[in-house]
Amino acid sequence: MKTLTAVALAAILFLAYLVVIQAPGGQSISQSQISPQTQTCLACHKLYTPGIVEDWQRSLHSQESPASAMKKPELERRISAREIPAHLENVVVGCYECHSLNPERHQDNFDHFGFRINVIVSPQDCATCHPTEAKEYSMSKKAHARGNLEKNPVYHALVGTVISQKAVKDGKIVQQETSDFTRQETCFGCHGTEVKVNGLREVETQIGGIKVPNLINWPNQGVGRVNPDGSLGSCTACHPRHAFSIEMARKPYTCAQCHLDPDVPAWNVYKESKHGNIYFSHYQRWDFQAVPWKVGKDFQAPTCATCHNSLITAPGGKTVIAERTHDFGSRLWVRLFGLVYSHPQPKHGDTTIIRNKDGLPLPTTFTGEPASEYLISQEEQARREAHFKKICQSCHSTQWTEKHFAKLDNTVKEVDSMILASTLLLVEAWKNNLAEGLPHGKNPFDETIEQMWIRQWLFYGNSIKYASAMTGAPDYATFKNGWWNLTENLQHMKDWIELKKKAADR
Amino acid sequence: MKTLTAVALAAILFLAYLVVIQAPGGQSISQSQISPQTQTCLACHKLYTPGIVEDWQRSLHSQESPASAMKKPELERRISAREIPAHLENVVVGCYECHSLNPERHQDNFDHFGFRINVIVSPQDCATCHPTEAKEYSMSKKAHARGNLEKNPVYHALVGTVISQKAVKDGKIVQQETSDFTRQETCFGCHGTEVKVNGLREVETQIGGIKVPNLINWPNQGVGRVNPDGSLGSCTACHPRHAFSIEMARKPYTCAQCHLDPDVPAWNVYKESKHGNIYFSHYQRWDFQAVPWKVGKDFQAPTCATCHNSLITAPGGKTVIAERTHDFGSRLWVRLFGLVYSHPQPKHGDTTIIRNKDGLPLPTTFTGEPASEYLISQEEQARREAHFKKICQSCHSTQWTEKHFAKLDNTVKEVDSMILASTLLLVEAWKNNLAEGLPHGKNPFDETIEQMWIRQWLFYGNSIKYASAMTGAPDYATFKNGWWNLTENLQHMKDWIELKKKAADR
Amino acid sequence: MKTLTAVALAAILFLAYLVVIQAPGGQSISQSQISPQTQTCLACHKLYTPGIVEDWQRSLHSQESPASAMKKPELERRISAREIPAHLENVVVGCYECHSLNPERHQDNFDHFGFRINVIVSPQDCATCHPTEAKEYSMSKKAHARGNLEKNPVYHALVGTVISQKAVKDGKIVQQETSDFTRQETCFGCHGTEVKVNGLREVETQIGGIKVPNLINWPNQGVGRVNPDGSLGSCTACHPRHAFSIEMARKPYTCAQCHLDPDVPAWNVYKESKHGNIYFSHYQRWDFQAVPWKVGKDFQAPTCATCHNSLITAPGGKTVIAERTHDFGSRLWVRLFGLVYSHPQPKHGDTTIIRNKDGLPLPTTFTGEPASEYLISQEEQARREAHFKKICQSCHSTQWTEKHFAKLDNTVKEVDSMILASTLLLVEAWKNNLAEGLPHGKNPFDETIEQMWIRQWLFYGNSIKYASAMTGAPDYATFKNGWWNLTENLQHMKDWIELKKKAADR
Repeated sequence: MKTLTAVALAAILFLAYLVVIQAPGGQSISQSQISPQTQTCLACHKLYTPGIVEDWQRSLHSQESPASAMKKPELERRISAREIPAHLENVVVGCYECHSLNPERHQDNFDHFGFRINVIVSPQDCATCHPTEAKEYSMSKKAHARGNLEKNPVYHALVGTVISQKAVKDGKIVQQETSDFTRQETCFGCHGTEVKVNGLREVETQIGGIKVPNLINWPNQGVGRVNPDGSLGSCTACHPRHAFSIEMARKPYTCAQCHLDPDVPAWNVYKESKHGNIYFSHYQRWDFQAVPWKVGKDFQAPTCATCHNSLITAPGGKTVIAERTHDFGSRLWVRLFGLVYSHPQPKHGDTTIIRNKDGLPLPTTFTGEPASEYLISQEEQARREAHFKKICQSCHSTQWTEKHFAKLDNTVKEVDSMILASTLLLVEAWKNNLAEGLPHGKNPFDETIEQMWIRQWLFYGNSIKYASAMTGAPDYATFKNGWWNLTENLQHMKDWIELKKKAADR
Repeated sequence: MKTLTAVALAAILFLAYLVVIQAPGGQSISQSQISPQTQTCLACHKLYTPGIVEDWQRSLHSQESPASAMKKPELERRISAREIPAHLENVVVGCYECHSLNPERHQDNFDHFGFRINVIVSPQDCATCHPTEAKEYSMSKKAHARGNLEKNPVYHALVGTVISQKAVKDGKIVQQETSDFTRQETCFGCHGTEVKVNGLREVETQIGGIKVPNLINWPNQGVGRVNPDGSLGSCTACHPRHAFSIEMARKPYTCAQCHLDPDVPAWNVYKESKHGNIYFSHYQRWDFQAVPWKVGKDFQAPTCATCHNSLITAPGGKTVIAERTHDFGSRLWVRLFGLVYSHPQPKHGDTTIIRNKDGLPLPTTFTGEPASEYLISQEEQARREAHFKKICQSCHSTQWTEKHFAKLDNTVKEVDSMILASTLLLVEAWKNNLAEGLPHGKNPFDETIEQMWIRQWLFYGNSIKYASAMTGAPDYATFKNGWWNLTENLQHMKDWIELKKKAADR
Repeated sequence: MKTLTAVALAAILFLAYLVVIQAPGGQSISQSQISPQTQTCLACHKLYTPGIVEDWQRSLHSQESPASAMKKPELERRISAREIPAHLENVVVGCYECHSLNPERHQDNFDHFGFRINVIVSPQDCATCHPTEAKEYSMSKKAHARGNLEKNPVYHALVGTVISQKAVKDGKIVQQETSDFTRQETCFGCHGTEVKVNGLREVETQIGGIKVPNLINWPNQGVGRVNPDGSLGSCTACHPRHAFSIEMARKPYTCAQCHLDPDVPAWNVYKESKHGNIYFSHYQRWDFQAVPWKVGKDFQAPTCATCHNSLITAPGGKTVIAERTHDFGSRLWVRLFGLVYSHPQPKHGDTTIIRNKDGLPLPTTFTGEPASEYLISQEEQARREAHFKKICQSCHSTQWTEKHFAKLDNTVKEVDSMILASTLLLVEAWKNNLAEGLPHGKNPFDETIEQMWIRQWLFYGNSIKYASAMTGAPDYATFKNGWWNLTENLQHMKDWIELKKKAADR
């Protein structure tokens, strides 16, 4: 393994001098708009990671400087900064512009052929041009997704129960360690890992050995990733790689990476819904890049982004129907998924601060009573619901919209009541010492009846509530992880208790 | 809440006078072709529900009058009426043209700013221009989908068992009430609700409070919806919203809203089949709007509509391969799904009239004997099968087609025999009082072994039969709800009986 | 039924004389390029199977002669022959050119209106122009997919257990015969059937009765089909029907026909991955027909074909990143799926020759020890892994790629260890005579605990390993057939043993 010499570096810089970058379709990007540093990056990376260079060349970042982006009318702007550092203003947003920001904060900053480069570009870096988005995001549950899972002892126990290695010893299943690798590709694949830097490491590349920061718990693009600069989140989770595409974030495949069945069946329900049908049938004629996103004009049925975070206007592009937000729960009033019972949205994205009546870090008690102090008020719920309905009413009548949400309200109640019935069965099993859980100070997630109980709320209850919320996925509400399964599994819980009781009697 | 005044109405009418409707792509629809009433509708709804106005502007309905549509050559016509009421003939098909029809029949007719408007446009209204389609549809099982489920005591019991609230009392699961809301979003989401009108109700809109008919069991677009004019069905189930799109109905996503796994896995099987592969790979180059639909020319692999209902011709557009039909079962001979055993298609869309030998309203007995009197004859079956094969033979050789259906015949027999084995186990459980069902005059769907039995025919048998019928989805026939599951679950039924017998012995 | 007369044949030949073939888009294919024989075929089949004629007209085969295809620069060639039989060189690749090859080898060769025609075109026939592809394919596990399943007594027993008819006799489930039809549409739908010719058979067509070879176990397009000329494989499995499309083979839907959950969840994992997200969001702008396939230029995220078999170059089209291969396992080092434990790829596509330490035809022992003699060496594994990583490194950094595969290595180990724990439970059940399996000389696949064990490796282990390998499908690794299910099912295995032991104790 030979480390690159000064000669090679000189050759690279000469290459940089010669390079002419071509945009797709043949129009060349004016050299003068690409910073000299980025030109140097491109000279090598065109050869060594050509895929991402091509990706970038198709992006808006390679086509436009912040200065020109800032000149657009308010509603058409994709950039929220009012002021941009002078050296970035008049060059396109290239490799160096992003990978060199805030070096003092970046533990992953390293010397790369004479340039100080960060491996990871964090939301804090993106905030240079997109401060509003970064700020909103930082307040969201998404930004805190790792901590909310990791630092909450209840969830932490569930994670450990599910993804730990197991062995069988003396007829018992024994939970063993959980590896960082498995954490990285299961729960924390979506929730995000804590990326740490462990010195430098030499990697063998096409041009010889080079030294790079040794990143631990990486690669990872989870929404709550803890970055080496201390910031939370990963913009690439939804705007992947070097395309920085608004189109991709607006298409439902992006959300579908994490929000899918059996636990969060948003994507599955969408696919089966009327909205999904219209999307799949006609999306080829829609405009996923228009800013603002004009209802009826640019699209004729909502995707996830329409209802949850895009800037939506009337067809004329002037009347705002919904403001853009990157605090993803902020349009929602009720929290349907992820926990045993539905409850009002939490006030803060960081849910580790919540304490229910029993002192547990959960938004409801074991029987469903909400920890109201930590959840948004009834007034705030009403405000958000009214705001949300405005989006529906772009296409649906007032009555249609009202009745739709009245149905959802009822479904939430019914499902919660079914879950309560299941919880009471679990409590009965614990009381009769048929299984060991909370009352015994034992893991409440690792026995058969406990697993059945988890299925009730995490899979089946969620499916029904999502099917109800997203207007029309009758199969998900019925036979596919729906009422059928909720009913069947409740029966299995009862059977299990009966069987264990009989065995205990003898 | 203020009710809209005459002044506001005048303002609206003035707006209507000023409005210029733009079609997508910028070409303006000739004002003279839009009726004055519809122009008034548009003036407001462009502001208040812009999404549906834009949707309509992209539709053929906004581009063409019935008079011009009727001038097309026979095979190219999308309109089956020979005569159209004079006042509709020369205007495009706008809001008022559809929402004002047959007011005397519509319990949901109401005064809307001086116009008599129906909230719901029913198949009977669409029949003004599309009488053949409406008539065919009215004879289909789809039109009767709600009644066939609701009025059949056996199915009614199954529905109640699955979607009712449950509570646990004294160690037993007690079935409680089923809400209309849950009915609406589960079984009857696809099958259709009975929409009733309960007087007027004031809704708060952007322009103040307005009074609208209070619709119960709505929104709903189920195929067998009972409309406030007494008609059955909902055209928007397959031609959604205000696009009235033939493309959408021909693309498989539409059928996929209801015909998906685990109970009716047509969509899942299609996705995994060779036909599906070709569709997904090449559909972007196909023409989903051409009438007639020319095999090879407009598409190179079938979608659901190709085989089941579209007007299909040879590439030249002159030789008819299959006539259009909106009676969806009418090309089929054997009924694969929905019931315990396969059987010939019923003679009538209304299946509540069927009585098997045991007097139950089912097309077969509990052991599979068909209620032949109510089912199509062997001759009719042969006629339909021969007709259907003509579609296959547009691309496949005669031998290919014959062998394909010989395979299906065998699969139907094998699956039915596996289901019979399962039924005999259930009967054994009942006979030995291990569970209480039909012989005890009790619910045959609510105990564990009964649920296992339902899975056999409703999920696993159906999957195998669909995989066989739709040429090529080996996984659905094998591991994904197929033979694997049929076999495994039969084993579980046997285990359950064994365990219960042992427990009873002691 | 009347057999076609000489008069009809004359009429057909006259039609052939008149016919003018139109390519899609209206440009006519030069008549002189279509062989007279193919012109005759087209004359009839345009009328009788118009779909496939249209399909062919859209294909490259109808547009270009081998002679012109051979003139392309090396990397752009889609044809690997260096020499083509003279009579085929200057005509486009039409019906007769393919269906008349090697008649002496084809048991399905027959007289069809004066022409000697093979019903099936086999890889050996395609080898006329594509010899490299045919040869590579012949060495792959795909080519041997039927034999590997059929001739291996262990797999054979599993197949028989899953897809045989069952009856219940004296409270026991009795395995009965397995029909050829069911074999054809389940396991061998993907693995391929042995197509046999059983004399001639008269079929009734639109133009009267004609005699054709009676093909048994057909239609089938399984990858390991045994053809009537003795060759193995079916090119139409991935290049379906008469489009012979490279685009289709490169799009993931083709692989998805067989590689999907629960047993081989490649497709499901891809859909949920970052790569899948980028594909679905942007594929409309990619070029799936370009040869070579240029990373970044023609596509911005990989499909199955990118990593597993396409010829991939840098954006300029000159620097080869990966050579084309039709030996599909040849880029892989570790074999993740299909068997109890992961192991190095087998040396030969024919895996029936493998013997493990216990003398069984399996690549590992029951406890995971590899049958190394039949598997590729550590050096070959390292070579392949290094080669594979070059593809990843077109877009990903060296460190990214290394850490990704280090994670996979760990996952393989952890999953194998979980499977071993499951196997030990099964062995315990056998030892205690709670179930009868290998030690009893009995079927190891037909009892409840055996079925549970199969689920562990065939469904859940595979899901986790695929999710790990394909970078990012956290749900498949966790809740959707992942760690959750592996854990839950291990618990069920333990419960089952406990219950059986208690019952035996009494």
